[in-house]
Amino acid sequence: MEINQIEKVLSNKNELLSATNKCRGDILKMTTLAQSGHPGGSLSAIDMLYSIYLVANIDPKNPYNPDRDRIVISNGHISPAVYSTLGNLGFFDIDEAIATFRLAGSIFEGHIERSIPGVEWTTGNLGQGLSAACGMAVAGRVKGIQYDIFVVMGDGEHQKGQISEARRFAVKYNLKNITVFIDYNKLQISGDISRVMPQNIKDEYIADGWVVLEIDGHNFDEILNAIKMSKNIDRPTMVLARTTMGKNVSFMENIADYHGKPLTEGQLDEALKELGIENNLQYYKDIRSKFVADVSKHTFYRDDLKIDIGMSKIYNTDASLDNRTAFGNAITDIVQLNEDRIAVFDCDLASSVKTDKVEKEFPKNFFQSGIQEHHTATMAGAASVNGVVSVFADFGVFGVDETYNQQRLNDINHTNLKVVTTHVGIDVGEDGRTHQCLDYVGAMRNLYGFKVIVPADPNQTDKAVRFAVKEYGNFLIAMGRSKTPVLADEDGKPFYGENYKFEYGTGDILRDGSIPLITYGAMTLYALKVRELLSGKFDIAVLVFSTPLAPDMELLKRYSGKGVVFVYEDHNRFTGLGAILSQKICAEGAKVKVVTFGADYYPYSGKPADVLKLMGLDPSTVAHKIAENLSK
Amino acid sequence: MEINQIEKVLSNKNELLSATNKCRGDILKMTTLAQSGHPGGSLSAIDMLYSIYLVANIDPKNPYNPDRDRIVISNGHISPAVYSTLGNLGFFDIDEAIATFRLAGSIFEGHIERSIPGVEWTTGNLGQGLSAACGMAVAGRVKGIQYDIFVVMGDGEHQKGQISEARRFAVKYNLKNITVFIDYNKLQISGDISRVMPQNIKDEYIADGWVVLEIDGHNFDEILNAIKMSKNIDRPTMVLARTTMGKNVSFMENIADYHGKPLTEGQLDEALKELGIENNLQYYKDIRSKFVADVSKHTFYRDDLKIDIGMSKIYNTDASLDNRTAFGNAITDIVQLNEDRIAVFDCDLASSVKTDKVEKEFPKNFFQSGIQEHHTATMAGAASVNGVVSVFADFGVFGVDETYNQQRLNDINHTNLKVVTTHVGIDVGEDGRTHQCLDYVGAMRNLYGFKVIVPADPNQTDKAVRFAVKEYGNFLIAMGRSKTPVLADEDGKPFYGENYKFEYGTGDILRDGSIPLITYGAMTLYALKVRELLSGKFDIAVLVFSTPLAPDMELLKRYSGKGVVFVYEDHNRFTGLGAILSQKICAEGAKVKVVTFGADYYPYSGKPADVLKLMGLDPSTVAHKIAENLSK
Repeated sequence: MEINQIEKVLSNKNELLSATNKCRGDILKMTTLAQSGHPGGSLSAIDMLYSIYLVANIDPKNPYNPDRDRIVISNGHISPAVYSTLGNLGFFDIDEAIATFRLAGSIFEGHIERSIPGVEWTTGNLGQGLSAACGMAVAGRVKGIQYDIFVVMGDGEHQKGQISEARRFAVKYNLKNITVFIDYNKLQISGDISRVMPQNIKDEYIADGWVVLEIDGHNFDEILNAIKMSKNIDRPTMVLARTTMGKNVSFMENIADYHGKPLTEGQLDEALKELGIENNLQYYKDIRSKFVADVSKHTFYRDDLKIDIGMSKIYNTDASLDNRTAFGNAITDIVQLNEDRIAVFDCDLASSVKTDKVEKEFPKNFFQSGIQEHHTATMAGAASVNGVVSVFADFGVFGVDETYNQQRLNDINHTNLKVVTTHVGIDVGEDGRTHQCLDYVGAMRNLYGFKVIVPADPNQTDKAVRFAVKEYGNFLIAMGRSKTPVLADEDGKPFYGENYKFEYGTGDILRDGSIPLITYGAMTLYALKVRELLSGKFDIAVLVFSTPLAPDMELLKRYSGKGVVFVYEDHNRFTGLGAILSQKICAEGAKVKVVTFGADYYPYSGKPADVLKLMGLDPSTVAHKIAENLSK
Repeated sequence: MEINQIEKVLSNKNELLSATNKCRGDILKMTTLAQSGHPGGSLSAIDMLYSIYLVANIDPKNPYNPDRDRIVISNGHISPAVYSTLGNLGFFDIDEAIATFRLAGSIFEGHIERSIPGVEWTTGNLGQGLSAACGMAVAGRVKGIQYDIFVVMGDGEHQKGQISEARRFAVKYNLKNITVFIDYNKLQISGDISRVMPQNIKDEYIADGWVVLEIDGHNFDEILNAIKMSKNIDRPTMVLARTTMGKNVSFMENIADYHGKPLTEGQLDEALKELGIENNLQYYKDIRSKFVADVSKHTFYRDDLKIDIGMSKIYNTDASLDNRTAFGNAITDIVQLNEDRIAVFDCDLASSVKTDKVEKEFPKNFFQSGIQEHHTATMAGAASVNGVVSVFADFGVFGVDETYNQQRLNDINHTNLKVVTTHVGIDVGEDGRTHQCLDYVGAMRNLYGFKVIVPADPNQTDKAVRFAVKEYGNFLIAMGRSKTPVLADEDGKPFYGENYKFEYGTGDILRDGSIPLITYGAMTLYALKVRELLSGKFDIAVLVFSTPLAPDMELLKRYSGKGVVFVYEDHNRFTGLGAILSQKICAEGAKVKVVTFGADYYPYSGKPADVLKLMGLDPSTVAHKIAENLSK
């Protein structure tokens, strides 16, 4: 953002006045037309929103220019204000936006989506925007590109704790190119914010080390001067903009009900008269009635990022390490080869999740975010659509469970995030059930875009990590805590060695046989023991399905001839691989009995092998149950 | 807590000194014995922890006395400090705790569990304790019982945003009986807190309206006087206790590494010498080696709560309402009948989730928590094990997705929580994908204790709500947003009318036929349309499975004779009822084709019927696909 652009706009405020007045009309038209949406906050935010877009370094003709300024709208329900601003500034056809707002299939959805040029981040669930802005700032820093980031936020949403996490991060890393504008209209759905949840927003920012400016959010001089000032303040700046909900429509002003209620057609007519705008609703109604959904328009911009993943590291069968360390080694390699396009995020667990080597050797690529998982997940997601690949490494319960909705929102944003979780399943040491992530497959299965890889040994871990970093999209790579022997083939050579190439969706025949025991991750070792225990009696094949969301059904078919498959997993029995295979089998109408060994309840705290035994999941109990089953 | 009890303890500080010294020895012994655990923070917290338990109104002989003071340990990893305190105060056999710490099957788990007398809340994942304390305070207020609540927290965990939410709630409701003690040892796993994530903890509390006292956390005068003072302060009070990690063992002091690392046996010997304590490790080793796990000891205290659920309300077939309103009516009835034992929690959506009637008519039972879902979910859970039933009503994306881990932790705590979510599935109005909760079955399926009910119409909603409130345990009741006609039987009478009794796990034959179309919730209506469209060609039975986690397999068997069942759901297709049925079918080795109609990707924003059409989930497309399938 350039100061002289602000000066130019300041010298011609009448234009600003008339443009925002038109936007007000558009906001009211589109919400009345859709018979839903959020006009009240849109009218209170429009003056600053329009001003920011107008002076920011952002080009409607080239909206994905890497060095553009970023504008993040955290309160995504003010979509009418965003669409009217962007449309009137030439990012798209404003009439289409007005006419098709909230129609099924239109890109002009109820809450703003990143598929729209000029929208940097899909929001809707509140409290996410500042974290996303931090991700954009981090990405710029890694890439060595300078730009400004403006975040428009609601006041009510400041109740979300995630914002306090983001505030601290911004101060720690002195992300002084971030300026927050708060639409301080003092109303939320349930009424006055001071009645719903009293909060000293200003003091909270100051306590966290921000600079705070206070302005009238409808006064263009004050708005533009605040933007100008923020440019020269060497800390993150928050602009508390006092505004009026429903501003400039007399009967809407300060009425909380208009947070989420559109005007009737009669009220619209009255409002437009007040604004001095022609009522051409019929024109838009005609367009709306002819709308044909074209879902191919819902595309999400992707950076064309070339990642050098280097050469795989092969661990020999005498190596003694855990999968975490293999991940740590691989990611350190990769960061070294891609220093200007990768960011690694940690939440106070680097030495456990093995990103400490990156921290030490490549501190510019490493971001220590403290015990702030919600913020970090969102930040990592947003960074990953701003020119870097993001790697967020954490324990399973934090990277999957605690941040489940943040990962969902990342997924909706079509991010390029690699979540790497250690300490999944029962293999967490003695930390007990609060730390046992038993749903690393079952939770992620709800998120359409995420791919899940659960490597079986250090060699497969190395290859899976390199694969996932190179491939665009969201991945979860999940692993336990314990040391994991390097798996060998029948000749004693590394099974996932030189000739192995990781392919998403391909299962592996670790040991051949006629009765399939399917497994993945930490249980692979135990499955081999089951096979040993049954050898001579039953001819067990150990099949490794490391991509449980995309099981290798061809392989399964080859081995399910006897009508039964056994699944052995370090996971909730109701939502893991056994459940997934069953659904695929039933969808085809096949007859295959699936016997799943997995956790039926929250486990105990103890050494993994002891806990498995207590739960009837140790190799000898499982072998016994398989034998029993096969002897029926 | 009584002031004279403090005076008594103050007059005999030597006893306190010797007791905490013994605790220090116990802490070191148990962690060395277990070869894992968190000695560093246990030593920094023990002086205040022991002091609090000593003066609190809590009786080892009667640990569940309803008017006891509550002590919540938020940083559950200081379990060695908690066990040594409780054991030495007579809550259980201290030797058993030392000897069996972190052994699989022992109740003395890695992180503290509510199954242990004297432990009020299972923690481990950080940032939860203050929210739990608010729940206990709220429960006391509803019940009209006075008690004090002490919360021991770490400093590092203050990075979690949820704590800021809890702080605000405590001030809004002036929960002045809450006193927070922060173990301010300034170290977290990754080192100095000011380096990991700089934070002005004190200023943040002050900005939020708390009173802050600062003390030396190893000086008993200061600790006890702070407790005494907090009793007379008419606001929530935070005591910032400066402490030393590893306190009193010279070589451990201020070493971050001891956060999560036990001493070797040699180091232990040295440390015990410094403390003047006999090294009797062998004694405990002997007990440990003889330990036999008895999992029946893992029991969780339950209040014996009699809830009067009144009489069901019957809606006639000409009624025009949504399930939300039926819920709102039922819960208002129930609150009226149980004013001293029910709490209803809201996050700024009362008018949408229909708890606004409770807010208006029973304000003492209603808690408006603002846009603070993480805090609210935990608070509601904790209240529900302190003498009230908790009802937390919210949109699906907040009550399920955003608070997924909080619900998991509630479930681990064996709470008695009724989560009621509206706006699930595609039936959310035009708010779009950020607001579409498509995993209300699939996410909860990962949580072992939760039961899920998805009622099909207002009558079933009424009965399900009354059932869930009466039955102990965690429930999710999920419903859409739209008006839902009252379902009628073939005679036009209410299907879920006078003669209907809700039973968990029982499916309903809404319309008979020979080919089963199984559905639930908002899709029930659409399923009836499918049946209509196919009538004359195929004889479709519409079966309603309102408890998808416990599908009625007997009923399914009766209808699956033709080898195919169709499932129609407003849910992620990979994790809903279709997936559950498939797993049960495959577990039995049966041959039934399951054809599931559900969402294959994140939907669009628009009117539900339009969105369904765009996704090929409208009745006519579904009818067409069923016909095609049956004609093969």
